[in-house]
Amino acid sequence: MSTTVIILAAGKGTRMRSSLPKVLQPLAGRPLLGHVIETAKQLQAKNIITIFGHGGDLVQNAFANENVEWVEQTEQLGTGHAVKVTLPVLPQDGISLILSGDVPCVQQSTLQKLVDASTTTGIGLVTLTLDDSTGYGRIVRKDGKIQAIVEHKDASEEQRQIKEINTGIYCVSNAKLHEWLPKLSNDNAQGEYYLTDIVAMALADGMEIASIQPELAFEVEGVNDRVQLAALEREFQNYQAKKLMQQGVHLIDPSRFDLRGQLNVGQDVRIDINVIIEGVCEFGDNVEIGAGCVIKNTKIAAGTKVQPYSVFDNAVVGENVQIGPFSRLRPGAKLANEVHIGNFVEVKNTSIGHASKANHFAYLGDAEIGAESNIGAGTITCNYDGANKHKTIIGDNAFVGTNNSLVAPVKIGNGATTGAGSVITHDVADNSLAFERAKQISKENYQRPQKTTK
Amino acid sequence: MSTTVIILAAGKGTRMRSSLPKVLQPLAGRPLLGHVIETAKQLQAKNIITIFGHGGDLVQNAFANENVEWVEQTEQLGTGHAVKVTLPVLPQDGISLILSGDVPCVQQSTLQKLVDASTTTGIGLVTLTLDDSTGYGRIVRKDGKIQAIVEHKDASEEQRQIKEINTGIYCVSNAKLHEWLPKLSNDNAQGEYYLTDIVAMALADGMEIASIQPELAFEVEGVNDRVQLAALEREFQNYQAKKLMQQGVHLIDPSRFDLRGQLNVGQDVRIDINVIIEGVCEFGDNVEIGAGCVIKNTKIAAGTKVQPYSVFDNAVVGENVQIGPFSRLRPGAKLANEVHIGNFVEVKNTSIGHASKANHFAYLGDAEIGAESNIGAGTITCNYDGANKHKTIIGDNAFVGTNNSLVAPVKIGNGATTGAGSVITHDVADNSLAFERAKQISKENYQRPQKTTK
Amino acid sequence: MSTTVIILAAGKGTRMRSSLPKVLQPLAGRPLLGHVIETAKQLQAKNIITIFGHGGDLVQNAFANENVEWVEQTEQLGTGHAVKVTLPVLPQDGISLILSGDVPCVQQSTLQKLVDASTTTGIGLVTLTLDDSTGYGRIVRKDGKIQAIVEHKDASEEQRQIKEINTGIYCVSNAKLHEWLPKLSNDNAQGEYYLTDIVAMALADGMEIASIQPELAFEVEGVNDRVQLAALEREFQNYQAKKLMQQGVHLIDPSRFDLRGQLNVGQDVRIDINVIIEGVCEFGDNVEIGAGCVIKNTKIAAGTKVQPYSVFDNAVVGENVQIGPFSRLRPGAKLANEVHIGNFVEVKNTSIGHASKANHFAYLGDAEIGAESNIGAGTITCNYDGANKHKTIIGDNAFVGTNNSLVAPVKIGNGATTGAGSVITHDVADNSLAFERAKQISKENYQRPQKTTK
Repeated sequence: MSTTVIILAAGKGTRMRSSLPKVLQPLAGRPLLGHVIETAKQLQAKNIITIFGHGGDLVQNAFANENVEWVEQTEQLGTGHAVKVTLPVLPQDGISLILSGDVPCVQQSTLQKLVDASTTTGIGLVTLTLDDSTGYGRIVRKDGKIQAIVEHKDASEEQRQIKEINTGIYCVSNAKLHEWLPKLSNDNAQGEYYLTDIVAMALADGMEIASIQPELAFEVEGVNDRVQLAALEREFQNYQAKKLMQQGVHLIDPSRFDLRGQLNVGQDVRIDINVIIEGVCEFGDNVEIGAGCVIKNTKIAAGTKVQPYSVFDNAVVGENVQIGPFSRLRPGAKLANEVHIGNFVEVKNTSIGHASKANHFAYLGDAEIGAESNIGAGTITCNYDGANKHKTIIGDNAFVGTNNSLVAPVKIGNGATTGAGSVITHDVADNSLAFERAKQISKENYQRPQKTTK
Repeated sequence: MSTTVIILAAGKGTRMRSSLPKVLQPLAGRPLLGHVIETAKQLQAKNIITIFGHGGDLVQNAFANENVEWVEQTEQLGTGHAVKVTLPVLPQDGISLILSGDVPCVQQSTLQKLVDASTTTGIGLVTLTLDDSTGYGRIVRKDGKIQAIVEHKDASEEQRQIKEINTGIYCVSNAKLHEWLPKLSNDNAQGEYYLTDIVAMALADGMEIASIQPELAFEVEGVNDRVQLAALEREFQNYQAKKLMQQGVHLIDPSRFDLRGQLNVGQDVRIDINVIIEGVCEFGDNVEIGAGCVIKNTKIAAGTKVQPYSVFDNAVVGENVQIGPFSRLRPGAKLANEVHIGNFVEVKNTSIGHASKANHFAYLGDAEIGAESNIGAGTITCNYDGANKHKTIIGDNAFVGTNNSLVAPVKIGNGATTGAGSVITHDVADNSLAFERAKQISKENYQRPQKTTK
Repeated sequence: MSTTVIILAAGKGTRMRSSLPKVLQPLAGRPLLGHVIETAKQLQAKNIITIFGHGGDLVQNAFANENVEWVEQTEQLGTGHAVKVTLPVLPQDGISLILSGDVPCVQQSTLQKLVDASTTTGIGLVTLTLDDSTGYGRIVRKDGKIQAIVEHKDASEEQRQIKEINTGIYCVSNAKLHEWLPKLSNDNAQGEYYLTDIVAMALADGMEIASIQPELAFEVEGVNDRVQLAALEREFQNYQAKKLMQQGVHLIDPSRFDLRGQLNVGQDVRIDINVIIEGVCEFGDNVEIGAGCVIKNTKIAAGTKVQPYSVFDNAVVGENVQIGPFSRLRPGAKLANEVHIGNFVEVKNTSIGHASKANHFAYLGDAEIGAESNIGAGTITCNYDGANKHKTIIGDNAFVGTNNSLVAPVKIGNGATTGAGSVITHDVADNSLAFERAKQISKENYQRPQKTTK
């Protein structure tokens, strides 16, 4: 049976105190709604219908590249009303999962179980058993079968003892949604249409209500304010950290690890405290990441050791490379195997060949550097003339001296050497020495400036 | 009725194992006693009397700028004795709040409630209900009214079941303090005068004892050793973090956020992990602070993004500025809107005009830089001649080349350009090019030094 | 009585999902087995016998410098079998402590208590009382005396209520081990020889079983997977942090402090968040370590303040030094008292004399710098000619200008000055000024390159 995913994403989220619609608030670097859409895609849903309202343009633009059908709910008249506005585009057959855009952590496996259970019955929901169920809608059962969902305010004292609650995640046959939703009433104190009322309709139709529970409670936690968002961020991070540890990653402190995207790892990867991973990263066997590194969209091959406080963005790093501390790889940095990059070195849009070294204070931008070359401390590629960017080409086995300024476009040949402090404006031939330097002058008994009394 | 605040701050704090008097130990960057004095000031107390003893000079010097009356307790003869030594300077009328210098987190709202409650009765105290009250003085009540405070060691088995305890925070009419304190007895095992005994005196006088409870338990926690200090630091930080989140700040991990002072924020401020805020800071709308930044006494205007590991001290940053990672703003750094400051850049006592850039390795000290100018990588203002500091003036739309040394005092005009690697010792006229460079020399087939076999 | 320590270290640790044998996985920077060997040494054990199996070469090589006797267990036939393979080398008299190589945190004091208790009885074990003892072997007592150890699967419902469990840490007379171990049977479902069976043999021999409990539960926690390893790492770190706080160290956040080795401290040491200490470090009185510093094998004398994000390795730092932020001290860095090292400065194999300063961007390698000298921003010792390292000698009261390249071997005399931007290739005499610089040239109305339209 084909599955539709309906996502309620129209809420404003006033308690976030933000100019951003609630479903665009990020969790682990991705909007809340993005998590739900991603899970819907994992389920291979036939179609994803998202109900938007507040900040609709922002929300739609944020997911412009996703294959999502957008339905506007112009008035906020309750969850039942929200789903009802999807009816014109909702298929007549198949089944729909109804999710909330602010409940980002529900897992695909949980939802698949719900779909499987609901396919037979025509309706099912995710429930959760809590130590303290105060405030939630209780699941009333008889002989194990769901008899009703009773809201806290309507519950008897006996019903309030029930620990099993409604999470608001439903799976319902589309035929029934088309039948029931037009019949929903807003004859209640709030004047809203409640989706929960379909449970009573199903029971009235003699249907059984399937139910499943999530593996982990945080899957069904919603976000209404910044305090809840921060708490859920930690739960999600701990969940991700645990999965990585189970894969064999050595996290020195899982409570000080942030993964905002996806990390693929080999064996015996070691990640020290306070590392942040963003985007899609890949670390080979025995990669070690030092404390405080921030690594985004970067591939690091086996055996490479990254020392503390290195910041990488869209870089490719070879095997057995030594980098850091305080190194910066910017987009287009490409380091071959055995390269050494030391402290306070910045590399941008530059390839560095096998076993070449830049160990201290260097800015290498828009350059191609061969193998076995050495870049002196303080050396800078002058890649920008104030208007355009130019390339610096350095060959194999070159030795670029200290504090050089390499004025691009310029080429330094294989085996070439440059003297310390040189401004290199002309190409340097293979195996030659180039330098730009005046004569050292000395004046004896020099009197240095004296401190001015103010 | 006018309120006096009496602060007990004479204890040595032996268990801290410190050379510093206990009340000077910092919590969130401020001495314990400083928190209490600040709260007293929020209460608009008519006068603040602090009882000092151990390390008196240090304590008084630390608060030399505060309007505090100091009374010395030369012998440590108990809390009752401590308050008694204030009698010569204590007003005859009005009411006194009696606080401890090592209970730093009590909130103004809690104390105001205590003052309000005690104004009617003439005496009141703050109590706390604990799951485990072992060790504390119990509040014995009958028909809801306080009958006695019984110390743990003197308590019956039945009294030991009482969960409500005395926190040691009192509010008492000054007239009664003048009457009761001289009558305190030290006829007990320790030979000390206990302030708690005034409760029995009040009851003997037929007075009712008012009591209130703090909103949060940590308000009445005291500090006796480093373990307690660290625990209270976290509770206080969590409290502050929660308040900021309720204001709408997006804290990625509130348990990894340290505020040591005051932070004023606009809307949608985002603060990544491990940020430390010191002194008084102000962040405008949509400001983003990257991981690990340490920011002190700095104002950052709307839309500015600070990348990780930037350290600011007494700087002013405009709107939509891009800074970091690894940037350092020192006192007097003043960045206009749209400025770009990149990695490994240090700015001190320097103003940088609209949209100017210093993207890599630069030291800008004692400089004035105009708008739309570009400062090359590795460029340094030589502001110090070994004795005095001098200024560097750079105009608008200037292009200062790579690895320049700008020997101050020196001026680079509007639209001026300097060549890479130049030492600029003379002023550069508007729109002119200046450079300091020798001819590039080349020697073919250069033989580099060979590795010496040792 | 002489004590032997037998350490079971033959397990593979499949659940770690690592190529490293389990007992080599690091906790607080030291292999699990290293912790146990260290504790054995503290006990002044007469001999330490370690049973190895999986990854035997790796394990033995990791402890090649330790006075450990290695016995191979070629087949993994249970804990009883493991100890049995030591019999050929086990002394006939004395007593043996039997420890696990994957239970790293047991304290010397706990084991000493066990040895003391077991010396009288001839056998003893460490037990632990747990709230939830599910899965563990229960300690069955009668009149306080141990009657049996019953595995969970064999326990009656009543026995399963017992909260006291067997931790697997034993102390047994060697004579009895020689007597009992050959008699162990593998007639059980797993076909393994269980060490636990010696308890029944002792009881059969009419012996009393001594038992003690550890002071802290984490002492007897074992490690089977990365999740457990990470959890134990935190417990161990918290334990270490608490000990340091009890000594008077001001840890701003003990849950964000990592000690991977040993830290000796004076009074009033203050350590900010996220500091990592490795190897053996020593901090004098009033030393302050800023946030995020990583400090290894370094001695820092009294009064020194280290600003955030400084990384030190095998350095020696004098009194009242100011360093950082973003400073790097590499092996052989030796700073005298009152030295100032500023941001983005790297020091390697270099001594810096009293009150000398290098405040910005400098690489000082293989240098000797005298007292009261000033090293300009951007100045670099060119210590490497591509093949060999050479020394730079700088005297007292020297002033090395900005952006200098000091081409070693070279000597700058006392009181000497160098001009900004100089490449210094010849020695500079005392009190003289040296510079290397061309004439500054100016071209008016210079037309800068224009942006190329692509």
